[in-house]
Amino acid sequence: MAVCELCEESGGEIIFRNEQLRVVLVADANYPGFCRVIWNAHVREMTDLAIADRSTLMRAVCQVEAAQREVLQPEKINLACLGNMVPHLHWHLIPRFADDAHFPHPIWAASVRQTADEVLAQRRALLPALQAAVIRYVSCAS
Amino acid sequence: MAVCELCEESGGEIIFRNEQLRVVLVADANYPGFCRVIWNAHVREMTDLAIADRSTLMRAVCQVEAAQREVLQPEKINLACLGNMVPHLHWHLIPRFADDAHFPHPIWAASVRQTADEVLAQRRALLPALQAAVIRYVSCAS
Repeated sequence: MAVCELCEESGGEIIFRNEQLRVVLVADANYPGFCRVIWNAHVREMTDLAIADRSTLMRAVCQVEAAQREVLQPEKINLACLGNMVPHLHWHLIPRFADDAHFPHPIWAASVRQTADEVLAQRRALLPALQAAVIRYVSCAS
Repeated sequence: MAVCELCEESGGEIIFRNEQLRVVLVADANYPGFCRVIWNAHVREMTDLAIADRSTLMRAVCQVEAAQREVLQPEKINLACLGNMVPHLHWHLIPRFADDAHFPHPIWAASVRQTADEVLAQRRALLPALQAAVIRYVSCAS
C-alpha cells in the first residue's frame, strides 16, 4: 500500500492540532488564508466517520470559516472535501475575492486573472491575525 | 437586487424536500448521480446558519453521500459548497470514478478523458435506485 502524505506529513503550517484533527495554513501564493482542516486518522469519506466525529469535524470547519470571515472579509467562502488524489479526509477552506485568480470560478478551473501583488501582500499581512482568530474560534465550545 | 435562481427555481430534479432543505438530482451527462443539497432559505454561508441548522444540513449531506456510496459504489465522493455565482447555500455531492471525465482532478478542472457511453448508461440505469436510497436515508433519524 502506498504511503499517505497526510498520514506522513502535516499538510501545511499547523495552526491548531488536537487528538482528532488539525488546522493548517496552505502555502498558495494566490490564496492567502487558504486553510485545511484535516482529520488526523486515515479515514476516506465523511460517512466513514462516526456521526459524533462528523459533527466534531464540521464544527471545526465552521469555526475556521468564521475566523476567515472575521479577519479577511472575503466575498465568499468555498468549502470542499475532495480527496481523489489523497483519500485521507480533509477539508479545503478557501476565502474568495472578486479580484482573485479564478473568481467566480472554482480555484481548480483555469485562472482568469492575476491578482495585483499589493493586494496579495495586504492579505498576507493579515495571516498572523487569522492564525490568532482560528485558535480563538476552535477553542470555543460551540 | 438580482433574482436568486435557487430561490426562484428548484436547482434540479427534486428527490426529496422538507421545510428546511431539498435534495435534487443534477442533469450532468458526465456525472450520473450528481446531487445537490440546497437550503431552502436564502442564506449565504454555512456560518450564517444557526448551529442546529448547520447540523441538519450536514446530516442531510451525509445521508445523500451514504445513498450514493451504496448504490453507485464510486471511487470517491466529492463534496463542495462554493456559491461564488449563486450565493445561496447549496452543497454539490459528486460521485467520482477512476474513468470519469476529470478524475483524479476536480470536476471544475479541464477534462482529461471521455467516459465510454456504455459506462455512463450503466450508471444512469442506477438512478431510480439512487433516488429510492436517498429518500430512505434522509427519512432516517440519524
